[in-house]
Amino acid sequence: MGNLEGHLLPALSFFFYSLYYSVRASLALLRGQKFFNPLPPREKRGHSWWKQVPVEGMVKVVISLTGMIADFFYPPGVNRLKIIDWEDPRRPFLFPNSWQHVTMYGFFLLSGVVDIVSQSCLARQSMKLERAAEALACCMLALLMAAHIEHKDGLEIRLHVLFIVPALLVGLVLLIEVWVPDQPPLWLLKSWMGLVFSTWLLQICMVLYVPPSGQPWISENPVDLAFLTIFFCWHLILGAGILAAVYGICSLWHHHCSSWTEAAGTKYQPCPTGYSSEELEKLRAGAELQDPGV
Amino acid sequence: MGNLEGHLLPALSFFFYSLYYSVRASLALLRGQKFFNPLPPREKRGHSWWKQVPVEGMVKVVISLTGMIADFFYPPGVNRLKIIDWEDPRRPFLFPNSWQHVTMYGFFLLSGVVDIVSQSCLARQSMKLERAAEALACCMLALLMAAHIEHKDGLEIRLHVLFIVPALLVGLVLLIEVWVPDQPPLWLLKSWMGLVFSTWLLQICMVLYVPPSGQPWISENPVDLAFLTIFFCWHLILGAGILAAVYGICSLWHHHCSSWTEAAGTKYQPCPTGYSSEELEKLRAGAELQDPGV
Amino acid sequence: MGNLEGHLLPALSFFFYSLYYSVRASLALLRGQKFFNPLPPREKRGHSWWKQVPVEGMVKVVISLTGMIADFFYPPGVNRLKIIDWEDPRRPFLFPNSWQHVTMYGFFLLSGVVDIVSQSCLARQSMKLERAAEALACCMLALLMAAHIEHKDGLEIRLHVLFIVPALLVGLVLLIEVWVPDQPPLWLLKSWMGLVFSTWLLQICMVLYVPPSGQPWISENPVDLAFLTIFFCWHLILGAGILAAVYGICSLWHHHCSSWTEAAGTKYQPCPTGYSSEELEKLRAGAELQDPGV
Amino acid sequence: MGNLEGHLLPALSFFFYSLYYSVRASLALLRGQKFFNPLPPREKRGHSWWKQVPVEGMVKVVISLTGMIADFFYPPGVNRLKIIDWEDPRRPFLFPNSWQHVTMYGFFLLSGVVDIVSQSCLARQSMKLERAAEALACCMLALLMAAHIEHKDGLEIRLHVLFIVPALLVGLVLLIEVWVPDQPPLWLLKSWMGLVFSTWLLQICMVLYVPPSGQPWISENPVDLAFLTIFFCWHLILGAGILAAVYGICSLWHHHCSSWTEAAGTKYQPCPTGYSSEELEKLRAGAELQDPGV
Repeated sequence: MGNLEGHLLPALSFFFYSLYYSVRASLALLRGQKFFNPLPPREKRGHSWWKQVPVEGMVKVVISLTGMIADFFYPPGVNRLKIIDWEDPRRPFLFPNSWQHVTMYGFFLLSGVVDIVSQSCLARQSMKLERAAEALACCMLALLMAAHIEHKDGLEIRLHVLFIVPALLVGLVLLIEVWVPDQPPLWLLKSWMGLVFSTWLLQICMVLYVPPSGQPWISENPVDLAFLTIFFCWHLILGAGILAAVYGICSLWHHHCSSWTEAAGTKYQPCPTGYSSEELEKLRAGAELQDPGV
Repeated sequence: MGNLEGHLLPALSFFFYSLYYSVRASLALLRGQKFFNPLPPREKRGHSWWKQVPVEGMVKVVISLTGMIADFFYPPGVNRLKIIDWEDPRRPFLFPNSWQHVTMYGFFLLSGVVDIVSQSCLARQSMKLERAAEALACCMLALLMAAHIEHKDGLEIRLHVLFIVPALLVGLVLLIEVWVPDQPPLWLLKSWMGLVFSTWLLQICMVLYVPPSGQPWISENPVDLAFLTIFFCWHLILGAGILAAVYGICSLWHHHCSSWTEAAGTKYQPCPTGYSSEELEKLRAGAELQDPGV
Repeated sequence: MGNLEGHLLPALSFFFYSLYYSVRASLALLRGQKFFNPLPPREKRGHSWWKQVPVEGMVKVVISLTGMIADFFYPPGVNRLKIIDWEDPRRPFLFPNSWQHVTMYGFFLLSGVVDIVSQSCLARQSMKLERAAEALACCMLALLMAAHIEHKDGLEIRLHVLFIVPALLVGLVLLIEVWVPDQPPLWLLKSWMGLVFSTWLLQICMVLYVPPSGQPWISENPVDLAFLTIFFCWHLILGAGILAAVYGICSLWHHHCSSWTEAAGTKYQPCPTGYSSEELEKLRAGAELQDPGV
Repeated sequence: MGNLEGHLLPALSFFFYSLYYSVRASLALLRGQKFFNPLPPREKRGHSWWKQVPVEGMVKVVISLTGMIADFFYPPGVNRLKIIDWEDPRRPFLFPNSWQHVTMYGFFLLSGVVDIVSQSCLARQSMKLERAAEALACCMLALLMAAHIEHKDGLEIRLHVLFIVPALLVGLVLLIEVWVPDQPPLWLLKSWMGLVFSTWLLQICMVLYVPPSGQPWISENPVDLAFLTIFFCWHLILGAGILAAVYGICSLWHHHCSSWTEAAGTKYQPCPTGYSSEELEKLRAGAELQDPGV
């Protein structure tokens, strides 16, 4: 939806997901985990049903479906679920923006479905497949956004190009993680880009719909465009600051917990899937020497 | 040929080749093979002549030759096998589109010839050379397509740019496989891109020659161009769906077969060429731990 | 500051930093160090306060702060520390150039702060984090420079594009060093690019403010633009020459020292952080066979 | 020189150098060498002076100097060795094309000097430094060519862009070889690109100065531009054919020689410099298993 609510939903969803991911990345780093997001094999997950449910996948599916439905039917009374106007003799396509947004959400929905299938239906969790589906979602987000900003004005183009850059970076990092999942710097890079990407989306809302100075930004004004890039750089610093704060809080919490009960961390030991045991031995041997700073 | 038949021949050829390749990639994955497309050494291939014939290479040669001949002489009565009009005092070049198409087919012909030479004439099959020839064919397809769409209208440019992207991706993957052939995710990526690429070529036929709504697409209409990108994204999902279906069917068939006769899979053990035995040992050791999900 | 002093400050700072870095890279190479810039663990650094101070980080902070203050308040009497003119009813943004420069300095300031924190506050020095902060500063320099040259004339665009290229290369090298810090060719590449980058900044001063021929360069003249690229190539050779000279002098000094006192070099042994001990053993084993030529 | 002779000199030099390089790469491959272009340590090279002379470096220096002098003083009577016309009050720059060409030759001269220094003056040959200097020469060739074709017509731009592509590819391969020198596929890729690059330069001579049809090519004609790309593709096939022929002849010669005298090949064993001995052992162990096909 090309309105405030249509930008706020993904912005806030990405922001809370990135915050959650930052917390998990920080804890994984502090605990010296070698793999992110491992699940124990299905038979060891316990019998209570809520331990079997892949929460992240479900959340992705629910938010994507919400976005898709809102794009078609919000504000109430509107129906954009038509692709061709058959009554017009020229048979024109209808609502390209809605269909672009729905397709973007569709790839995140697919990623959620892949997570659920991988964690619940396959004999072993396939982290490679999960990462590949997420990478696809990010790259398609960038491709559709590039098509989306055609024939828009200079301000919107600049705003969205600066949005495409971190999306492509996250896509690239996820693609690398299909092959090299055990890289803590990549986890942090992903968290950071996710935070930048969501705070920037909030900035887009502010620039387009609620400018704090009460005056609209002007596309033709090069000074306004120059400040967009400057603000993007400040969002990068802001994102790094949030990440550092999250890491600091997690660090305090981790040291508090580990001094309280020594054995608490053991249940978080990695349970990697899809990698040979030799590699694991090597990784485990190197784990205690790993730098906690990054 | 810039007509329906000229697009249908490569579209269907690529589609069936990609389907065949998907089946083989799925089976290689299910059997835990570490190398794709290995042949036993020549002396062990048996003496019947049909076991000596490199089928894939022959098919590539036959289809490429068909395409080349059709480009010069189809529809019947036409002869485009002239490059310069010597009778005109300005000596103009003739039929650039045909020569572009013929050159594209020529690289696939070369790839077929390389396959045949590598599998039948060399003492040891050189998989690196085969992959390099295929990578060259894909990259040249992209280069010639880029030259092909100059001075065309916006609709054709957009259609073909979205065709160049998966072609370049497949070329890149093939180039990587010259050095790193033992990557199952790359086999699946190649299969998927091949399927996208061929269904997209079918879509190009429909957009340019037989639009289902009965109305031609309009180059100047940004809504039509926006929907091209959306449809391309849907083809990506369609390709992933076909690949998942193929994998599922192969998986059922594989489990059925392997329960029926335990020893049936042994004759498909990899017979890699051009890699050291140490590496093989390492790979074999890791094979049973490999993730069957991807 | 868009004047001579505003270009001279970073040019000379980068030049002396690059010279200093070249000396250290040459010595690290001659001594066969495997890691650049290692510090002993904090408890072994001695108790005198000046051994605890991270000098490089402090220098970065001081120079960046000088640049930021100069950009706001130089020449004296000027105050550019305003971002929006609240008195104008249109609420326009003010001083985009100053805010761009300040943001560039801000990333170098951040890098200095990260160095100080990593070397003084963390339990172990995190070289990965230091390299990442430097890479970020270089990439943001390139991004802001790209925004900076919009709506400038052809001469300034060309001058600054040729400045962006080595900045991006250094950023890329620093990013690679986050993962692969033990590559002497990368140290030399970084030193060389740093030298090119700073002599080129001096060249920019000369072209824009003090042309030696007494005649201004003309943006519309393609010959002048062609010579810019030629001069940039000569700066590459000049930078290589300076680096070779530095290496030669360091080599003489090193051989003089090591013949005078055999044991002098031992205190410079690497003390890497964040890498496993196995890796170190391997590296140490390979050190004496390493090529001193590069 | 923007004339026939100015293009023929580099075309023929590159062609014969590429042929020579193809022969050496083929022989290195047939002999199973792991490093290309190794020299024995200086004390083992024999005492006759001509074994001490680095022939390749000398050839590079001589050809580059010839090109530079010809660019300034050919045709006889011309003197272009002036950079600024001091007599004109506007102080204009003079002869940008000559200075561009001279700078290009200058980088190849530098590469020749680096070869000589590395092979004659350093204690151990530094192959990394030699490859880096060659990579620099190729990348600068591409950069200067890009500046060279500004403000030219469409035909010259297309011709030279298709020349820049293989130059950049060779530069990239040489850069990779700084770190990974033991890759036979890269040797062949380099030989092939060198052949393409030089036959394409001959094609440029024909297109610009001696068109075989007797009619000049027309920049404004899209058909002529389309055929340029087609011809470039044919040059790629031609280059591959020449390389295959060279490999075939070398293969015959090699098998003839090795059957005549078994021990003849031993003196060509690799004498790598700058790599650890462990690595060598590993490589030697893998040598006999290596695929002779590619």
